[in-house]
Amino acid sequence: MATIYDIGLGAAFNIVTATIFLLIFAFLRLQPVNDRVFFPKWYLKGMRDSPSSAGAAVNKYVNLDVRSYLKFLSWMPAALKMPEEELIEHAGLDSVVYLRIYLTGLKIFVPITILAFGVLVPVNWTNDALDDLKVVHSDIDNLSISNIPYGSKRFIAHLVMAYVFMFWTCYVLKNEYERVATMRLRFLASEKRRPDQFTVLVRNIPPDPDESVSELVEHFFLVNHPDHYLKHQTVYNANKLADLVEKKKKMRNWLDYYQNKFERKSKRPTTKTGFLGCFGSEVDAIDHCKSEIEKIGKEEAEERIKVMKDPKSIMPAAFVSFRSRWGAAVCAQTQQTSNPTLWLTEWAPEPRDVYWSNLSIPFVSLTVRRLIIGVAFFFLNFFYVIPIAFVQTLANLEGIEKALPFLKPLIESIPRIIGVAIPMKATFFITYVMVDGWAGVSLEILRIRAFVLYHLKNFFLVKTEKDREEAMDPGSICFYWSEPRIQLYFLLGLVYAAVTPLLLPFILVFFALGYVVYRHQIINVYHQRYESGAQFWPNVHLRIIVALIASQLLLLGLLSTKGLEEATPVLLVLPILTFWFHKYCTHRYKPAFVRNPLQEAMRKDTLEHAREPNFDLKSYLADSYLHPVFKSDDVDKFYVADDPGAEEVIVATKRQSRRTTPVQSKYDGSERLSVPDSIPER
Amino acid sequence: MATIYDIGLGAAFNIVTATIFLLIFAFLRLQPVNDRVFFPKWYLKGMRDSPSSAGAAVNKYVNLDVRSYLKFLSWMPAALKMPEEELIEHAGLDSVVYLRIYLTGLKIFVPITILAFGVLVPVNWTNDALDDLKVVHSDIDNLSISNIPYGSKRFIAHLVMAYVFMFWTCYVLKNEYERVATMRLRFLASEKRRPDQFTVLVRNIPPDPDESVSELVEHFFLVNHPDHYLKHQTVYNANKLADLVEKKKKMRNWLDYYQNKFERKSKRPTTKTGFLGCFGSEVDAIDHCKSEIEKIGKEEAEERIKVMKDPKSIMPAAFVSFRSRWGAAVCAQTQQTSNPTLWLTEWAPEPRDVYWSNLSIPFVSLTVRRLIIGVAFFFLNFFYVIPIAFVQTLANLEGIEKALPFLKPLIESIPRIIGVAIPMKATFFITYVMVDGWAGVSLEILRIRAFVLYHLKNFFLVKTEKDREEAMDPGSICFYWSEPRIQLYFLLGLVYAAVTPLLLPFILVFFALGYVVYRHQIINVYHQRYESGAQFWPNVHLRIIVALIASQLLLLGLLSTKGLEEATPVLLVLPILTFWFHKYCTHRYKPAFVRNPLQEAMRKDTLEHAREPNFDLKSYLADSYLHPVFKSDDVDKFYVADDPGAEEVIVATKRQSRRTTPVQSKYDGSERLSVPDSIPER
Repeated sequence: MATIYDIGLGAAFNIVTATIFLLIFAFLRLQPVNDRVFFPKWYLKGMRDSPSSAGAAVNKYVNLDVRSYLKFLSWMPAALKMPEEELIEHAGLDSVVYLRIYLTGLKIFVPITILAFGVLVPVNWTNDALDDLKVVHSDIDNLSISNIPYGSKRFIAHLVMAYVFMFWTCYVLKNEYERVATMRLRFLASEKRRPDQFTVLVRNIPPDPDESVSELVEHFFLVNHPDHYLKHQTVYNANKLADLVEKKKKMRNWLDYYQNKFERKSKRPTTKTGFLGCFGSEVDAIDHCKSEIEKIGKEEAEERIKVMKDPKSIMPAAFVSFRSRWGAAVCAQTQQTSNPTLWLTEWAPEPRDVYWSNLSIPFVSLTVRRLIIGVAFFFLNFFYVIPIAFVQTLANLEGIEKALPFLKPLIESIPRIIGVAIPMKATFFITYVMVDGWAGVSLEILRIRAFVLYHLKNFFLVKTEKDREEAMDPGSICFYWSEPRIQLYFLLGLVYAAVTPLLLPFILVFFALGYVVYRHQIINVYHQRYESGAQFWPNVHLRIIVALIASQLLLLGLLSTKGLEEATPVLLVLPILTFWFHKYCTHRYKPAFVRNPLQEAMRKDTLEHAREPNFDLKSYLADSYLHPVFKSDDVDKFYVADDPGAEEVIVATKRQSRRTTPVQSKYDGSERLSVPDSIPER
Repeated sequence: MATIYDIGLGAAFNIVTATIFLLIFAFLRLQPVNDRVFFPKWYLKGMRDSPSSAGAAVNKYVNLDVRSYLKFLSWMPAALKMPEEELIEHAGLDSVVYLRIYLTGLKIFVPITILAFGVLVPVNWTNDALDDLKVVHSDIDNLSISNIPYGSKRFIAHLVMAYVFMFWTCYVLKNEYERVATMRLRFLASEKRRPDQFTVLVRNIPPDPDESVSELVEHFFLVNHPDHYLKHQTVYNANKLADLVEKKKKMRNWLDYYQNKFERKSKRPTTKTGFLGCFGSEVDAIDHCKSEIEKIGKEEAEERIKVMKDPKSIMPAAFVSFRSRWGAAVCAQTQQTSNPTLWLTEWAPEPRDVYWSNLSIPFVSLTVRRLIIGVAFFFLNFFYVIPIAFVQTLANLEGIEKALPFLKPLIESIPRIIGVAIPMKATFFITYVMVDGWAGVSLEILRIRAFVLYHLKNFFLVKTEKDREEAMDPGSICFYWSEPRIQLYFLLGLVYAAVTPLLLPFILVFFALGYVVYRHQIINVYHQRYESGAQFWPNVHLRIIVALIASQLLLLGLLSTKGLEEATPVLLVLPILTFWFHKYCTHRYKPAFVRNPLQEAMRKDTLEHAREPNFDLKSYLADSYLHPVFKSDDVDKFYVADDPGAEEVIVATKRQSRRTTPVQSKYDGSERLSVPDSIPER
């Protein structure tokens, strides 16, 4: 059982660790040789250049200015300085809203911590239930709800606080949802013309025996959206091709590596042809790489032609573009046919945000996969997490086990354990918060992986300034793992707010440190690969709500084991109100993250039409939604060299359908567009 | 404890009761004087007339043809004869789909009954757990799951059957959902032009300081749906006016009554002015009624002017009509502004289906009411239903209570009781099914209330054939109470299918009898006041799913008290699969009941445009969505007499806004519609 002294020791150790990390960071970031590791964002923005100007050569690698070392924490205020508006301009809305998750944590937990320490800690402290029970416990437990005797009237304080915490959390969540929704709307409104504003992703196009997917799409939208349809782009299953391109790129890196080695050592390097270059016959490495590249190049060209010509490689999905944002907004929000599983339309993601390899998964397969994952998730929880957690709870309650004969009636019909176990688990989580939340976040700023990789690449591969540019890896916020991590802290904070308030200050430090560190990284390091306009916020909101409801149910279980069964209905109101609040918020704010309101679309259309009446939208959208393997520069070069006619195939495939479309003449004039069923033959 | 003999006695009694009802019905329906009670539908269709042709006068009242009495059940095959297609034509889709609920019951329970009797009854019967337990029980319980001893391997049969029942129920439900969705789509497609096809209900129109609701609506839709907007109709809060109209109608009935009385008795009738005509001073009844009618008429006229002129009586809601079905479908399915709680649009119900008094409830108030009802519902269940049900369960288990000392370990922290209580409750529900389901349904066909009322009215009020027409009350299926009643039978059937299969045949009889009786009533009696196109089916589906999940959870609880805890995960899969199935069905079929697919809309538009290119839609829609008190004939007569200019006010209020609308000139030509922001001044 950890005492306050133990926790203090742990805190001291972790503070020292975190400080060491920050010191190392402060030292490393000042060295010009690391500039591209710690400030890549500025290089990408073109606002920083490799240090090469004046001074001695050593200045290019090491910082000799002693004064700069003294202010080793100066990056912190610098990170906080940039105003939000400017930060959106600099790093996009996604990053700024990601930071708001930390801010939300602070907004929720600062008042809760103050209240909990002002009200609950004194209420818990001035009891001696644990001494009476003779359970082995620590002085930390004296601060927790465990220290209040069975059936005490003091639990009313926890009950009232549970209500206060709920109302405060909901208040903050509502404000944040509203704020983020407004930011998103303003961001979308201020955006320049973007292909996705005019485009809709259509999935589950039904097979047609007479027409190709492309023809079918064109006919369908010409008939059902006659005044608005502009063009479309079918989706190719180019996963194998993408693999080949990737493989060739890797082989080229090896070629560079061996050529560099050859230049330095003047001896032709060798490699083995087998697994990982460790087995098989030995060959000349440079020749081997060259022949491999040529072989893959040929394969790639064949695959490219196959993808173009084989109708099976065209997926039943398409990006359909419209003449106006209004037309796209209408198509994305409406049901096209009487069968709601066909011709599914949704607002297209921006081109960089398309996950191409997933787009080729058939829709039915996606549904089945979802079911399988759902069932698997359930059984994983049922057979693994719950029993393990339960056994672990028991195993850690050595103290209770020792006093077992005395506590037997308490341990018997088992849920009561929860009443002692949850509060006592607090010390474990305090340690966890310090290790993962404090030291872990400090480690993030060091970017060890990127640091090592950059210097390795710099040494072995880099020849030109362009190579150095490519070796630089700014990275990006990986929402899929960093967001759930923050959510754990929300869950811990909300669960322990009414139970063991001592945990709260540790969580506050995590949120504050995380906010500063990630703000610094976003300003100086990360380069987001796409911009969704904070589309992830509804999920953040939902998860905090789930954490809140979980905390309320746990408190309910806990108090019902503490002789306060009569409080159950009063406590049951909490999750109901919270759930209703969630429904309200979803209804009120979520549409801003999913749908494109017609008024906004019309406003932008009208403005644009007035400003640039002759803008050629069709050529602007020409290949926005083409699979990237058909676009990237180096591939094209290679490709054209192999088969100079193939480039045209892409275009031809698209145009062919248009040539056979009987209504093509419509495109000549806009006059006849209003009479879709009476086109004079010429 | 009821024995099989008791149940048999109950069944015999109820069969006799039901047969007596059916005999009375068979006798009454053959009397010409009751023709309008039992065949009103045909009168409304104009295919039947009051019997007055040939024969003696007595033939007008009594049927003297003895042969017709012999075939007293002949209405049953007659009711089943009419094919479904013709029935849709005759009574509408709502009624036909309502009948499908009974059919669904038969489809689900006939195979389940056969299986349960083939497999579960033998498995249950060949045990003697109840004899061993020495619980007071009946031979019915020997057929139920109670008769299987604790921890027996035989429960595997119930487990397997639970899976079979789930798959079969889901299979039937899926087929029915698909079938009903198809019927709905075909029905909508075959429909003639209807105002609601072009109309959208807009709610939560934000207040505007400069413009009236009407002006605001017009401007908003002219800007955001420039090519499609046609006209709109604001919603008046005319609830008080409707009350007055209703009051006046009642007073007129009294006037008729007294005048009839006067004609018969030649003595002027008197009445008292106080409460219910029983207290206060005595006055001449006819004069009193006339003066009252005049008074109410004046009040009504004042109220009418007030509603017209007072902007407060205009609700922030409007029915907006479009030039095409496509335009309406688009508007109904899209979000209009960035604030998703403003300018809410939904597909308008057909004019007869509008519940006018509810339309004037503000949207916020509706949300709050929903919350209050939700919370109240929860507490009602929590504080009332659950404890009552529990206490009742205990109270009825006299048998267990007598053997209490022996069963003490069984009754001990209580859920195990469920394992004995639910099966033993079966006899209660069997009796319930017979009384409510058999005799109750047979009573329905007698139409006692309508029968008595018609003859009373016929005697006291009817003077002309038109009066008789009005005295006839065909009634209609009250979905709000008859549908939940059927749902109870689904719940009972599914819960007891695996527990006490003996209940199933009783439920089968209910579904079969109900189907025949209601089919007869729908063909000959009921006259639905509106047609929603089977929009209620998703609710029917949902409730059967809820019943299925409830039955699965009960079986889970039951088996876990029977020493089969290890089966819990296997059983938990059932509700998960069922829930997933529901999600799938909702995703797949529900949109057909909510949204109007663009393809269908476009198809109908194109066809109509080709057939009737010069149809005047605007005048067709002129006052479709006007509040009925502004339309009904008698009111207008009265109204015009009181204030001949007022009729125009309605129109003027609508047109005024158009006069002040700067874009009015648009309506002259369609040429300029494509340039919404450059209208030349003339």
